[in-house]
Amino acid sequence: MFVREMTEQECIALVASGRLGRLACCREGRPYIVPIHYALASRCLYGFSMLGQKIEWMRDNPCVCVEVDELVSHNQWKSVVLSGRYLELPDTDQWRHERLHAWSLLEKHVNWWEPGGLKPGPQPIADASPHVFYCIDIEEITGRAAMAGEPV
Amino acid sequence: MFVREMTEQECIALVASGRLGRLACCREGRPYIVPIHYALASRCLYGFSMLGQKIEWMRDNPCVCVEVDELVSHNQWKSVVLSGRYLELPDTDQWRHERLHAWSLLEKHVNWWEPGGLKPGPQPIADASPHVFYCIDIEEITGRAAMAGEPV
Repeated sequence: MFVREMTEQECIALVASGRLGRLACCREGRPYIVPIHYALASRCLYGFSMLGQKIEWMRDNPCVCVEVDELVSHNQWKSVVLSGRYLELPDTDQWRHERLHAWSLLEKHVNWWEPGGLKPGPQPIADASPHVFYCIDIEEITGRAAMAGEPV
Repeated sequence: MFVREMTEQECIALVASGRLGRLACCREGRPYIVPIHYALASRCLYGFSMLGQKIEWMRDNPCVCVEVDELVSHNQWKSVVLSGRYLELPDTDQWRHERLHAWSLLEKHVNWWEPGGLKPGPQPIADASPHVFYCIDIEEITGRAAMAGEPV
């Protein structure tokens, strides 16, 4: 097996082809990770969440990191790590276009609202809990790809 | 679909049954995530890595977070998040027992050294690069499980 750096174009392509990532945020020197569903458009990851620790922390510190991977086998995998800034898309005129854009991208996924969209306990999906739309503006993206065998 | 909190015992069982997690560390308010391979023993995750950003950051700030999940389908998944402290297991008499213990757990996995064990570029596995053994001492662990249908 050998490992190589992926080009930025390859990294973006991997993120664009996926919809599940792991997002890390941090507060007071403590990191926190959660799985997220996202949709990529124009170097932004759009996501959706109910209020909770992740949103509170990202409001406090918008510097986040997202990892997206494609694991085929122990010696064939790709892993992309991106750093970006969290930006909330509130339901106001100023952000209406972005909000609708986020909806249009995310609604393509069946049940795109999980896992961020539900809290533990019985709770109908139609519940009127406050939902937060956000985007992660990608500032830096790098990745590594592993392949079996020796480099050509 | 409904989501429930997992018990601590269920969380530990999920982490024990897996070997791939995503680890987040942070420095100067910036988080960083990488996939890791680990082995669990006595509320410690043992891992292995070559030197790099992850190790540098964890040496600087040992507060880390690891997420382990089991995604069966969009409405059947478990996700466990643990907070813990990074501790290096140097090759000295003081840590010999732990180091051997880490070896014994990790060597059960075929190719357990990827993805943390290789750097991009052609590099034989027998390369004498400095390898770091570490453990993450679990301080807090929580998890959520999603199931199709309605709560019983």
